[in-house]
Parts: sequence; structure tokens; C-alpha cells
Amino acid sequence: MAEYDLVIRNTTIATAADVVKGDIGITAGRVVALGERLDKGKKEIDATGLIAVPGGIDAHVHFDQDTADGSVFCDDFESGSRAAAAGGTTTIIPFAYQSRGQGLRDVVDRYHKRANGKSLIDYAFHVILSDPSEKIMGQDFPALVAEGYTSFKVYMTYDDIKLTDRQMLDALAAARREQAMLMIHAENSDCIEWLTERLELKGMTAAKFHATSRPFVVEREATHRAISLAELLDVPMLLVHVSAKEAMHEIQRAQARGLKVYGETCPQYLFLSEEDFEKPGDEGSKCVCSPPPRGTDNQEHIWTGLAANTFHVLSSDHAAFKYDDVRGKKLPGADKSFRKIPNGVPGVETRLPLLFSEGVNKGRITLQQFVALASTNAAKIYGLHPRKGTIAVGADADIVLWDPKRKVSLTNSILHHNCDYTPYEGRELTGYPVMTLSRGEVVMEEAKMSGSAGRGHFQKCDRPEAARPRGKPLIDPSIFS
Amino acid sequence: MAEYDLVIRNTTIATAADVVKGDIGITAGRVVALGERLDKGKKEIDATGLIAVPGGIDAHVHFDQDTADGSVFCDDFESGSRAAAAGGTTTIIPFAYQSRGQGLRDVVDRYHKRANGKSLIDYAFHVILSDPSEKIMGQDFPALVAEGYTSFKVYMTYDDIKLTDRQMLDALAAARREQAMLMIHAENSDCIEWLTERLELKGMTAAKFHATSRPFVVEREATHRAISLAELLDVPMLLVHVSAKEAMHEIQRAQARGLKVYGETCPQYLFLSEEDFEKPGDEGSKCVCSPPPRGTDNQEHIWTGLAANTFHVLSSDHAAFKYDDVRGKKLPGADKSFRKIPNGVPGVETRLPLLFSEGVNKGRITLQQFVALASTNAAKIYGLHPRKGTIAVGADADIVLWDPKRKVSLTNSILHHNCDYTPYEGRELTGYPVMTLSRGEVVMEEAKMSGSAGRGHFQKCDRPEAARPRGKPLIDPSIFS
Amino acid sequence: MAEYDLVIRNTTIATAADVVKGDIGITAGRVVALGERLDKGKKEIDATGLIAVPGGIDAHVHFDQDTADGSVFCDDFESGSRAAAAGGTTTIIPFAYQSRGQGLRDVVDRYHKRANGKSLIDYAFHVILSDPSEKIMGQDFPALVAEGYTSFKVYMTYDDIKLTDRQMLDALAAARREQAMLMIHAENSDCIEWLTERLELKGMTAAKFHATSRPFVVEREATHRAISLAELLDVPMLLVHVSAKEAMHEIQRAQARGLKVYGETCPQYLFLSEEDFEKPGDEGSKCVCSPPPRGTDNQEHIWTGLAANTFHVLSSDHAAFKYDDVRGKKLPGADKSFRKIPNGVPGVETRLPLLFSEGVNKGRITLQQFVALASTNAAKIYGLHPRKGTIAVGADADIVLWDPKRKVSLTNSILHHNCDYTPYEGRELTGYPVMTLSRGEVVMEEAKMSGSAGRGHFQKCDRPEAARPRGKPLIDPSIFS
Amino acid sequence: MAEYDLVIRNTTIATAADVVKGDIGITAGRVVALGERLDKGKKEIDATGLIAVPGGIDAHVHFDQDTADGSVFCDDFESGSRAAAAGGTTTIIPFAYQSRGQGLRDVVDRYHKRANGKSLIDYAFHVILSDPSEKIMGQDFPALVAEGYTSFKVYMTYDDIKLTDRQMLDALAAARREQAMLMIHAENSDCIEWLTERLELKGMTAAKFHATSRPFVVEREATHRAISLAELLDVPMLLVHVSAKEAMHEIQRAQARGLKVYGETCPQYLFLSEEDFEKPGDEGSKCVCSPPPRGTDNQEHIWTGLAANTFHVLSSDHAAFKYDDVRGKKLPGADKSFRKIPNGVPGVETRLPLLFSEGVNKGRITLQQFVALASTNAAKIYGLHPRKGTIAVGADADIVLWDPKRKVSLTNSILHHNCDYTPYEGRELTGYPVMTLSRGEVVMEEAKMSGSAGRGHFQKCDRPEAARPRGKPLIDPSIFS
Repeated sequence: MAEYDLVIRNTTIATAADVVKGDIGITAGRVVALGERLDKGKKEIDATGLIAVPGGIDAHVHFDQDTADGSVFCDDFESGSRAAAAGGTTTIIPFAYQSRGQGLRDVVDRYHKRANGKSLIDYAFHVILSDPSEKIMGQDFPALVAEGYTSFKVYMTYDDIKLTDRQMLDALAAARREQAMLMIHAENSDCIEWLTERLELKGMTAAKFHATSRPFVVEREATHRAISLAELLDVPMLLVHVSAKEAMHEIQRAQARGLKVYGETCPQYLFLSEEDFEKPGDEGSKCVCSPPPRGTDNQEHIWTGLAANTFHVLSSDHAAFKYDDVRGKKLPGADKSFRKIPNGVPGVETRLPLLFSEGVNKGRITLQQFVALASTNAAKIYGLHPRKGTIAVGADADIVLWDPKRKVSLTNSILHHNCDYTPYEGRELTGYPVMTLSRGEVVMEEAKMSGSAGRGHFQKCDRPEAARPRGKPLIDPSIFS
Repeated sequence: MAEYDLVIRNTTIATAADVVKGDIGITAGRVVALGERLDKGKKEIDATGLIAVPGGIDAHVHFDQDTADGSVFCDDFESGSRAAAAGGTTTIIPFAYQSRGQGLRDVVDRYHKRANGKSLIDYAFHVILSDPSEKIMGQDFPALVAEGYTSFKVYMTYDDIKLTDRQMLDALAAARREQAMLMIHAENSDCIEWLTERLELKGMTAAKFHATSRPFVVEREATHRAISLAELLDVPMLLVHVSAKEAMHEIQRAQARGLKVYGETCPQYLFLSEEDFEKPGDEGSKCVCSPPPRGTDNQEHIWTGLAANTFHVLSSDHAAFKYDDVRGKKLPGADKSFRKIPNGVPGVETRLPLLFSEGVNKGRITLQQFVALASTNAAKIYGLHPRKGTIAVGADADIVLWDPKRKVSLTNSILHHNCDYTPYEGRELTGYPVMTLSRGEVVMEEAKMSGSAGRGHFQKCDRPEAARPRGKPLIDPSIFS
Repeated sequence: MAEYDLVIRNTTIATAADVVKGDIGITAGRVVALGERLDKGKKEIDATGLIAVPGGIDAHVHFDQDTADGSVFCDDFESGSRAAAAGGTTTIIPFAYQSRGQGLRDVVDRYHKRANGKSLIDYAFHVILSDPSEKIMGQDFPALVAEGYTSFKVYMTYDDIKLTDRQMLDALAAARREQAMLMIHAENSDCIEWLTERLELKGMTAAKFHATSRPFVVEREATHRAISLAELLDVPMLLVHVSAKEAMHEIQRAQARGLKVYGETCPQYLFLSEEDFEKPGDEGSKCVCSPPPRGTDNQEHIWTGLAANTFHVLSSDHAAFKYDDVRGKKLPGADKSFRKIPNGVPGVETRLPLLFSEGVNKGRITLQQFVALASTNAAKIYGLHPRKGTIAVGADADIVLWDPKRKVSLTNSILHHNCDYTPYEGRELTGYPVMTLSRGEVVMEEAKMSGSAGRGHFQKCDRPEAARPRGKPLIDPSIFS
Repeated sequence: MAEYDLVIRNTTIATAADVVKGDIGITAGRVVALGERLDKGKKEIDATGLIAVPGGIDAHVHFDQDTADGSVFCDDFESGSRAAAAGGTTTIIPFAYQSRGQGLRDVVDRYHKRANGKSLIDYAFHVILSDPSEKIMGQDFPALVAEGYTSFKVYMTYDDIKLTDRQMLDALAAARREQAMLMIHAENSDCIEWLTERLELKGMTAAKFHATSRPFVVEREATHRAISLAELLDVPMLLVHVSAKEAMHEIQRAQARGLKVYGETCPQYLFLSEEDFEKPGDEGSKCVCSPPPRGTDNQEHIWTGLAANTFHVLSSDHAAFKYDDVRGKKLPGADKSFRKIPNGVPGVETRLPLLFSEGVNKGRITLQQFVALASTNAAKIYGLHPRKGTIAVGADADIVLWDPKRKVSLTNSILHHNCDYTPYEGRELTGYPVMTLSRGEVVMEEAKMSGSAGRGHFQKCDRPEAARPRGKPLIDPSIFS
């Protein structure tokens, strides 16, 4: 065999199934061999003592995305992808946002322009579907699926984009026909709006009342509703950013009766809590996201859901707004009502270090579960597997070397995003990525970034196997297909 | 003591708690004494071998009510109340229907006119609340509650009257303030409409597809949603006409976590099933009601819910349309789509005989449970207790004498309603009411009716104790009150 | 009608179903009339402002009972019945204790001798069944049931009396044949013994480790096991002294699937907690009972179970040992191991005042629920209804007048038992019984006792309707009957 | 790099995580490389169109094992291992059976002698622990764990071997100390014995009454009990051969609250049912195993448990007795009582073809789930991973090539076991193993066996990571360790 472009030697190779010792042979950006003592490479990396894991896939990030309220995400594809790579992620799946009335083709074109020439690492797109009209679901939707956009996010809240139950059924029926994956933001819109208005009337407008306006039952209700609609038509579905044990319990109930209901959670539900809203001044606004962090006891329940495989994906939901910026957390009016504080926290870079340190090193999850949650499951659920999401023959050489013993104090100054804070400031971690390879090219080494902006490629997603209906709809599918 | 107006002698007196032997002394329409050997009455009835139970309260009947589709309920307050009395019921609570835009005062006035001079027995009103505007909830609602209209029904489906979740919150908050009882018709409107359109497109328009358009998950979803909204604000609530075990299970979950969630079911879910839709011709339309009857195995689950006290009320949901009438089940278009078949079945007269025969005599429920389900619980839930709903000192002498061994073949010709069929045609029963007294006056004896139309009085309802919040809202109630 | 022996005038009469105003006419120890303005009585009591409730039935008390460890219950039938009456109880059901090898006839005879001439109020007996041999279950058991001993307690723990699962099946099958009620003490014996030995080895012998030795899972396990055995053979059953929410949840699961599983809880699980074991010195021993009080948050769950009718009976499990007595809580060795601290707390007198004050007056349960929990349900479950457990025509005139506004500071000096402490010392109550009548005779008035020891009569229990199988065994009952 | 001993070319390589295309390089019995176009091997196999999966691990087989009733397993390590290899299995974990009183060292020595020189494939041992005396748990147990026997099976039924709850706690505490895995046969012994005696008395002795004697509740009870004991001490545990949805539901409840409870099921619960007992003559005895197959509707629930990852392992529980043999299914007395019919069905060879055909090819599970259930999870749970259970660098070259389209009619004549029947006779399958390699050596090719008896090696098992406590015991573990 010809010389490899690169050999990573003497490493521990982790997949979602296995952890073994060996070398990794890389040529033309792909893993072409795994072996005990592989032949020479043009370049070699000695990875003794390090763990090679599949590059992370952050399946829930908001970069350079439109918003309805004039707030501005502070990370674009350049800063966002750089931060991702720094934190051990090699694929990002941001959102292309459909405003009502827009054709889906235009939507993805617009976001391609934003990503183009900017992303350091590979990327795919989810499409935010805010207008599932008959025309769009009949024409644009199947066309996009065929071209590699196979996941669609729908919101059950937020006025500008939320779908009615009827529209959700339209979306579910289309997803079933095309074997696309739906991602659901499950919160009851009416409850939130109703509570918000009353809190405002009472002058309860500080950041902490954001959490008051979205109690757990608001999430549980919408979660059960979404599951019910999916159960009716027999369509797999993923609940994004599940925050509270009550919503988690609905997912467990659904899984136990055999439904293909997938769950995602985020670091903010493991590491932040209501108590963070009590910080002095308007510091609480740094933790405003939806759903909000819950009580501290809830954190342990979410860990249980990770350990028990109730959740399949840990994403960042990176939605970064600068704290000291009038287009960010200090949006005009943000001091007058939590409603004006943009929803979101930064996290694309800290996601995996937090999970590794507190999950793997504290014994809450295994290394294989880490790989699955960080990368493999997202690749499968969104149709990127096995090109992405694993270290295996033929896969892209998206590989991250972790030093499991490295001590790092998290502080915003070491991060690469364009945000002026991290909600995890001061946290002490053990275990950190020391090298990130994207298709065989080193893009981070010891916190030093390399590789040119724009080297990242768009990735077409396959129809995910995970989105295949299980074949047991409550009514004859010929009726609605 | 002065002579009683009437003494019922040697009977078995059943309440929701006790079954004892004794005499009942009645004066001025009320029970003034219960005793072993009461003094003489001006009139005496020997009730040896009979059981005296509190007159039934049918808390869910539609008489002479407006409809949106031009269909016409075939029973008005005269025929309906006569049928009720014939079947052992002495109080009815029909609905006063608010069309959107109407003030609630006008609504109840209109229905008073319809009842006035017609009803053989006493009656109260539930108000169907289709337009909970700020003005109505702020003015009409508290005024009506103060005047004795303390229960309000809201629909989660049917275009002309359904409430959004937000409107339900408005209604719940008002109910909490006023200690009124909300009754919920829980079906997911969007699902039903979406399925109906698709069934019509496929030409699946026969009566049996009515059931297809409203699968159990549609009821379960709305039930959980309603419970969630009530849990959020800590408001007691009753789910009407629960049909399927899945919705029942949601109620049980809520009760187990301490919520004041009450449940009602109906004979159609104990005695009818999907199989009834398979009858020849358009006979299936006789069983079209919402929610629809479910599978035969579901019937046993509903019995379990009665035995386990999951359900508090068994009502008829009497909504009678003539089978052979162009304003009834044969409404123009009813042959072209199940959508045009009016929803409802007759049942005000058969409710209690069915429950007694198949419940008490078959050992599924006790005689005390029969009393509770037939009468007492409704009196408590709707603020009529202890004037109605029991045989006790001071209560109205609404008493029904049952012969527990009487054999009756149910057939429409023996019924007193104005409908041309009963869905229970041909069923053989054991146990039947042989005398009905309303405020001490015999209005039925051995199937012979007496008493003048219009003798029934309107009953003001108190704020029900059952509607008192338990004091554990998920958010501070000062925020929304 | 002849003059009544006694008329209670102008009272509020509460039953498990109703609360009404009226008079109660009593002759020959029985209620012979209830009415608005009853004729004159030889004696009259003006009960204006008071509530007449059925005399309490304490269905779980240990008086003058044998023990295996030499400890001595400090209350016999005289002091125990006096305390009961003082606290609003008119019927007690203590236990007749079968040592292994003893015939049941001998057992009940022995306890009759102990009760004879002593009890101030009426009493029945449960039989503790420790030796369900074929001979005993084939001969003694049906004979006793026929003679009015229809409830049998079996223990799943305590070496001298515990039954194996196989013996429980023998007992269940016999109970099914005879329609007797089984009462189950559900704790896993092996777990307790195993933990106790290890705690002793570690020197963890203080009273608080009693709770450590019996964690909630020990109760949950046995509860589920008992329910499973009963489900197998389709036999109703009552779980006594349920302490923890986890066991309660098993009961709820069973009830939801339609099983006739009844539950009892006790004041110690509403008002005591683990924290009481932390009291200085050996004060913790005052709260040693089995199962032990749980965490303070658990108390609210047990209240929920009362409100939701998961529990049918609130009993005292009065098992009083003097604190300062070498035959009581200071049994030889009690300072060396919690194992030597006799299990039990006094409570026969405080049971109902605690429930009334904290339940009814704090709005957690209704007055009707109070009556049901205090009296009616026990009467039904144990075959004493309607003679006992209600205020109704023909019932024994066991009536307690409560002043719902009376303020009382609980302190042992006001109690009538023979114990030297109450675990509820210092608690402030609102609402207290001011008069107790047993079969029409005043035995307590304003805390002053009257009536002669021995006036109480033994009560034969009927086969309880509540013990009738529901008819759905998992295997054909002809196989085991 | 030196020439490989063997290269498998152009295959689809499946692990529990990934499915990729590539070559497998094998040297000295191990996988030393995976690659796209590996260098030449001394021997090459073209596997175009075939799927290479990790050799199956059958973690539940009974070969040449002692029995209490004189019945004789018809397969020893030679015939059993041959059949295993023929069906795609490369590692077996039979049981070494401790009779009470025997030291564990003697036990494993005895079974080593039986395996020695006989097994065609590699093997480890579970130890059946029937006598967990203090001496054995204190000395033998840790010694054996240290030497590679890290899984222990305990029975909750069968008189000669069953443990009491107390003994189970001893076993659990030891397992926690040593990080060993306990396997639980969960059925309530007393119930079975009690029912069996009664069935015999009634003459209900045919094979089908075996199922009657072990209804689902018997399994559910013991499953909950075992879980409770493990929860108390915080010890991971695996429930073997779970048969019914009710027991499965207990496992799901435990998993949802975060317990490390693993589940195993078997083909007999997917493909056999109660109906098989109705076959003519004594054919029913062919399906007698414990727990027994359940209703046909239950099969779908067990499939759901596989799809939902409730179950981690699908084993055969191969316990083969000849149908026409007086030491097998026709044991003396077997015609007189089902009690005398030995419990067990053959299945080591058919396990994986059934799962592949009906699971993977019918779309019920993914190929990765097949690998996990067939091999990887057992390797992890029993401490053999990653040497066994995967195709990865460094792993033993235990590889099976499957032709996913091969059609096979199952019939006993094509099987290699020593049994005279298969309960799956006549079943048509799609997908079958066409080559089995054990440590790189072909032992089966197109149903033709090769390799010498005795070539299989004993495998020491590591302390499984899966057996590590999660660190949340209900009581302080220092108390019991």
C-alpha cells in the first residue's frame, strides 16, 4: 500500500461501541486504515496517552442567523466554526431560517452565502420551517431532502415562526413521506405569552422572571403534544434541548411503548440552574435561554437521562449574544422586560470539555457514551453517518485527540468564540482536546488554531435511517400520503 | 310533630355512603325525617323490596340547544325532562350556549325562556363559554357565578366554540378567582380537522370513519394539555365524556400527583363500540358521537375506572337527533360525509337503568358507588349538594324507588324521549326505577308519567367546594389574579 | 311515636357522603330517627355549633397483646378504650395474636378474656395469623369467619410471626373462599435483618438507625409482592400502616389496573419524620415504630394519598410502650441496639384530633373524607357497616360531637392512655371532640370520662363486601379452591 | 508491514456502532488492521456481498451441566460448541453449577474438565451460585473474580439452588465489593410450587399447565424484588431470560430512575407462544422452558423492548433435552406431570439466524443493534470486551460472514446440535451465516464444520465496567462492605 498521508500512532481509539489501542492511517482526508502497527505516513503524530475520538458534531448551533427582534448573534460561521474546532467539534449543523412566505430554496441559498468562505470545518444545515404551506411541503420540501437537507426544525412557540398543530401534522406527514427528521422546540406558546404579559403587568421584569414565565409544565405539555402528533402518524422525531425531568419522563414513556422518539439535551441543563438568575445586577441575563435552566436537583435527573440513553444527543444550542452589546443581551428594553433579553447562551466550544470532564471523568457516562452523545448519534440521526461520527475505515478523518488528564480552568479569555462571556466562567475541568483534525488537516493544536476560513465543506445529509417510520401508525397511512 | 305530607315506608335507603332500612318522612317537598317507624303521613307509600336512591342528576344533557350546523336536537325541556324522570333522574343540568360575541346574561336568559314552563323536574344550567373575552370574564362571569351559574364548559374542538390554550388560561384564572367549575371537552381540534379532510379526499365518508377521524390519541393529547394548564394555575377541573383508557390514564396520573382533576364518562363508552359502526346501511350514524365509542376491550377499562373512583360522574351526554329526520342524523350531506352527521346519542332515560343493571347487579360497582356516580358527586361538583344528590334531612325529596329485580327489555317504544331510536335497542336489563318523586311529588309511577310540564324549578348552584384550589400553583397566584 | 331516649338537637350531621343540619333521635342505643325537628327525648343535648360525626373506628390498635421480646404494651383494654373514647373513637379493633401452634379458637378466647369487663367501648378483633397450617386454614379459619372474626393480619416480617409467600398464598386462598379481609404488614424481612446485623456490627445502634435498617425500598418491595400474590389469586387486601410514597405508588398502580387493594396510613407518617430521631439523648426511641417515619417531604405525599382516596383508613397503630420503663422503651439492651427498642408509638387518643385539625381545618381533606377515613371505611372494610361507621337510621348511636373551633395544646397530661409520653407533645390543634356517645351513652364529656369499664360489647364482623373478589383471577379459581 | 495471515476482502464490517466497507487483516488470530485496500494476506477471502459481524457471544447456554432431577442435557461442549459455531457464535458462556456445600474452586475445576479438549470455540464460565455462605463469599468469590470468573447466576426459584432474599443480599454485597456481575433468574418460587401442587391435585398435568403454573405475575414480582434488593445496595444486575411485558416494564421503570439494570431475552419469547403448548400429543413438551412462552401479543412487546434497548442481550438459554429420550423430555413421570418435564429448549444454533431474519431484515432492529444484542453487549457486561464482541484493531478475529439474502428453511436435520428437534421447525428465514472464523481460523464454511474439538480456549473475564456501582446506594455502603 502507498504511504499514508498521516499516521496517528499509539493512540486509544474510541467509537460509540469500542475503545481499542492502535494507529490510524489517513490519506486524502479519510481514514483508510486502522491497525496495530501501520506502515509509515508522510506525517506522523505520536498520540501516546491521548484518546482519539470522532470529531464532535454540534447538531444545534445558531450562527449568523436572522432573528425577529433585531438582536444579533455574535458568532458567524467564521468565529463559530473556529470556536467549535477549538472545543473538539469538527462538524456543525446550524440553522437556515425560513421567514414566513420564503421559499425553502431561497432560504438555504441565503445561508450558503453566509457560510461560504467562512467555515473552518464541515457543516450541514437544518432548515427552520416556519411556513409549511401546501406548495412548500409539496415542492420545496422533497426537493431539498433530495439535495441533502434532511432535517427540519419546527417551533411550538415564538410568534414569528411557531406552527399550529395542524401545520405540525403537515410537516410530519411530509417528513414521513420523505424520511426526513423533524426537530421540535416544545414549549406551549400560549402559556408563555399569557404568563409573560402578567409578569410584565406586575413589574416582574428582571431576567429571573424569564424562568417564571416558562415553568416545566409548559415544556412537558408541548412535549407530550408533539409526541402525540408523531404517534398518530407514526413519524420519528427528535425533541431538542430538553430541560426538565418532566419532559424527559414523557420521552421515556414514549420510548417504552416503542415510539422512535429521540431526545437532545444541552450543557445548560446540566451545569446551570435557577440559582444563576440570582446573580447580582443583570448578570442573570447571561443565562437566559429557552427552555430555562431548572432547579439544581433537576440537573441530576438530566444526567440520569444521559446515562440511561434516554437522550441521544448533547448539543450546545449555541446562540451567543454579547452581554455588553445593545444588539445582544442589552437589547433596547432588556432592562425593562426579560422579554427583550435575547434567548440563548454560548456553548459550542465548551460543550464537549464539560461533558468529558463531568461525564466521563466523574464516571457518570462511559467513554463510548461520550462519543455517541458528542458525535455518532447526531451523525446517524441526521444522515451523516458513517462519513461523519466515527473513526472507521472510509470515514472522514475528523478526529480529535483528547488528553484525559489535562487540567483547564474555563474562562472566557481562552475561548475562541466572539462572545464576551461564558456562563461557565471559572469552572475547573479535567480532560481537554489538544488537537483537532478536520478531514486529516490539523485545525487546532494546543489551543492554537490553523487552517483557512472557508476550508470547511458543505455536507449533504442522507435520508436518515433513524427517520424511517416503524410501520405502526394509528391510522392507515394511505389516508394521509 | 305534625303529620308528614308523605311517608315512604319500609324501604332500603341508599346514599353515597350508606345503605340502611327505614322510612322517609317528607313534608313540603323536603325530607324532614328518616326513621325506623315514622309517624303517619297524609300519604304513604309501601316500598317494601324497593330501594330508595337519591334522584339522579344528569349533569350533561343537551336540550333545545342552538347548534351551528342547522341540526336540531329532538328533545326540548319538556320531552327531555320527562324522559329523564322516567329513567330515574330528578335534576338535569343542560347547557346554555354562548355564541361568540354574546353576553352571558343574554345567554342564560335565552335558555331560561326555553326551559320555562316546560321542565317536569328541577334544572340548573352549565354555560358553554365560547368567548372568554376580558369583558365577559371580568364582568359577566363573576356576576353569573354570584347568581348561581357556577359551571362552565369549554371546548377544545369545534370551530364555532373552541377555545385556544390562551383562552383556556383566561377561563381557568377566572374560575380560580370565582371558585367555579370548568368542564372540558378534550379533543385536539387540529388533528380531527386534518384527518377529516384527508378522509373526505379519499372518499372515506361513511359513519364509521367518524371514529377514524378521532383516534384515542386525539383525546389523550387534549386531556393532558387541559390538565397541564390547570396544573399550572392550580385550578380544579372536570374532564367530560372520557372515552378511552389512554385519556383515563392521564387523569389517574394527575390524581396520583394530587391534582383535583375530576372525570366523567358516559354509557356509550361502556355499552357501544366501534363494532356498532359496522351495522348495515347508515345505521352506524346512530352511534356517531364525540369522542366516539372505542374498541370492545376498552369498555372493560372504563368499568375499571368507575370501580376505582377515577371517574366521579356518569352522565348521559344526551344529544339526541332523530335518525329519520333531515334536521337530524339525515342532515343534508350526511350521506356524503360523516362530518355532516350530527354528533350525539340519546341517553337521558337509559343512563341509570344501564348502570344499575350492568354495574350494581353484575357486581362491578357497589350500590353506594351507583348513588355517587348517578347523583351525589354531580351535586357536589356543581354546587347543588346537599339540597340535591342525597336522601338526608333537609334535602329536597328527589327520590327514586328502584325495583332491583325488575326485568326490562330496552326498546325505543318504552322510552319517553322524542327520539326515534335508542342505541341500546334490545338490551335486557335487570333493575329499573318504578317510581320517581320530585320534591315529594310523584312524577313517574310504573312508567306512567304525571306532574305538569313546568313544575320543575331552576336551581341556583353554589360555588362548589370541589372547585376550591388546593393551594399549590406552579407560580405565585398573585401574578395572575 | 314513643318518646326518644335521647335527642341531639340542632347539630351538623356528617357522614362519609353528606353534611346536613338536623336532630338525632336515639332509643335503646341506636339511631332511630334523623329529622328537622324531632319530637321530645327523655334527655336532650343541645349541639348547636357542634358537628356530630360517627364515632371513630380505630382499626389498628394493640392492647394487652402478647409480644415476643418481653416488652409490655402499657395499655390494656381499660386504659386503651378510655383513651380511644376520649379522642373521639367508639369502636376499637385490637389484635388477637396467634403464636405458632396455637389454634385460632384458643387465640380469640384468650383475648376475649383480656377484653372482658374492661372495655369502655365496643370492640371487634382482628386475628394475627402466624401459623396458617392446613388444619387451621381448613377448620379454624372458616369457623372463626362464621362467628364474626373476618379480618386477619399477616406479617411479612418479624421472625416469630412472619409468613412465607407460600403461607400468604394459603391465607389468600382461604380469605377468598371465606370472603375475609387480609391485612398486610409489608416489609421485607430479610433486608431488615441483614441491615440490622451490619448496623450492629458497625456500632450504629442508636434509635435513629432503626430507620436506616428499614429504608423505603424494603416497604415498596413487600408491598408490590403482596399485591402480586393477591393479584394472582384475585383477592382483595389491605396494606396497613403505609409510610412512604413509594409504597403508596405501588398501591396506586394496583388500583389503577382495577385491583381491590386498600390502603391504611397513620398519623406518625403525617406528623413525625426522620428528624424526630435526632432529638437529644434517647428521646428518638419515642418515635421508633415500623415502618419508621420518613423524610419531611414524604409527609406531603401521604397527605396527597389521603386527599386522593388512595388510602381508605387512617388508623393509629397504637402500640404504646412507656418511655421510662424497663419493660417498655428502656427494655434491657435498648441502649445497646435499636433492635431492642420495642416498635410502636401511642396514638389512639390523638389520631382524630390531629386529622381534624390538620386535615379538615387546613383544607387538605373534606369533612366527609374525615368521616370516611376515621370511621366509615373501616366499618365497611371490616364488616361492621352500617351498624357502625355512620349516623344513619338503625345504626348504633356511636356519635361524637366535635367543636370545630376548640383550641387544644396537645400534651401528655391531658391524655387518658397509660403511656408516659406522646410523640406529638406541644402541638397546637384546632378542633376537638367534646362529647363521645357509645350506643347512646355519654362516655366522655368535656374530657371527663364516664361509663363503666366493661360496658363495651364485642362486635361480630360480617364478611365484608369489600373482600368480595372482583372475579378476574389470573388463573382459574377452581384450581385453588 | 509483514504479510497478514489472512485478509477478508471487500466486506461490509458491522460493529455495534458502525457499518462500513473495507478489508480485515488478521494475523496470529487477531484483527491487526482494518482498511480500504489492505496489503496481501497469505490467505484471502473475497467477502463481496457479505457482512462481517463480530462472532456471536451466547451468554446463556447449558452444556454438560449437572441437573437435580436426573435429566441429561443432550449437548456437551463438543456438540454444543459446534452448533454454536454453525449458527454464527464464536464464544459461549456456559454455567458451572455449584451444588450446595461445594467450594467454588471445585465447581469451576469440574467444568473445566468437561470443556477441556471439547470446545470448538472459545468459552468463559458463569458460576451458578447456590450456596453463598460467608466462607464462600469471603474467600472463593473474590479469588474466582480475580482469576477471571466475574459473573454469577442466582436463582430465585428451583429448590436445589434458589437463594433467599438474604442470600441474595450477601451475593449482591460481594458483587459490589468485587465488581462482579450478577445474573438473576427471577420467578417467585413459592407461587410456582403452590400452583404446581394444586394443578397436580386437579390432574392438570399436561405440558401446557407448565405455563399455567408460572403466570406473568410470578416473573414480575421476582423481577421487582431483585431490582429492589439491587437498588438498596446500589449494585448493577442483569435479569436473564425476561419473558413477559410486565417484567420488562419493571426493568424500564428501574432504568428510567437511573439504575444499572440490564435485561436479557431469548428467541423463545419472540417466536414461541402459549399456542405451541396446544400441539397434539406431548409435542407441547418441546416448548417447556422457564419462564414459559407467553401470549402471541406479548411477542410484539418483547420486540419493542429490543428496539428500545431495554434489553441488552439476546441469548439462547440453550438447555436441550432430547424429545425422544427417557433422560430428556420423556423423563420418567413426564407423562404424569409437567413438573417432570425438564425445563429448556435448544437454540444455540438458531438464535442469530432468527434474530437476523426477523429483526434486521424485517426492519425491527438495525444491523448495529443486531451486533450489540448478539455479541458486543454481552462482551461488555461480562468483561470480555474488546477482546471479544467487536471487529476492531486488537480484537480476536472472531468473525462471522453473513449472507443477508440467503434463504434457509429451518429444520432440525440441518442443525449441528445433538438434540432431536428444534422448536422452530419449518420456519423460513432470510439471511444466514456462511462462514465462521474463530481467532482467524475457519470453523464453519457453508454449513461444513472444520477445526478440531478442543481448539477453543478458556477466556478469563475482566471485572466488567458495567458492574461498577453508580455510587448512589440507599444506605451508606461502608455499613455493608
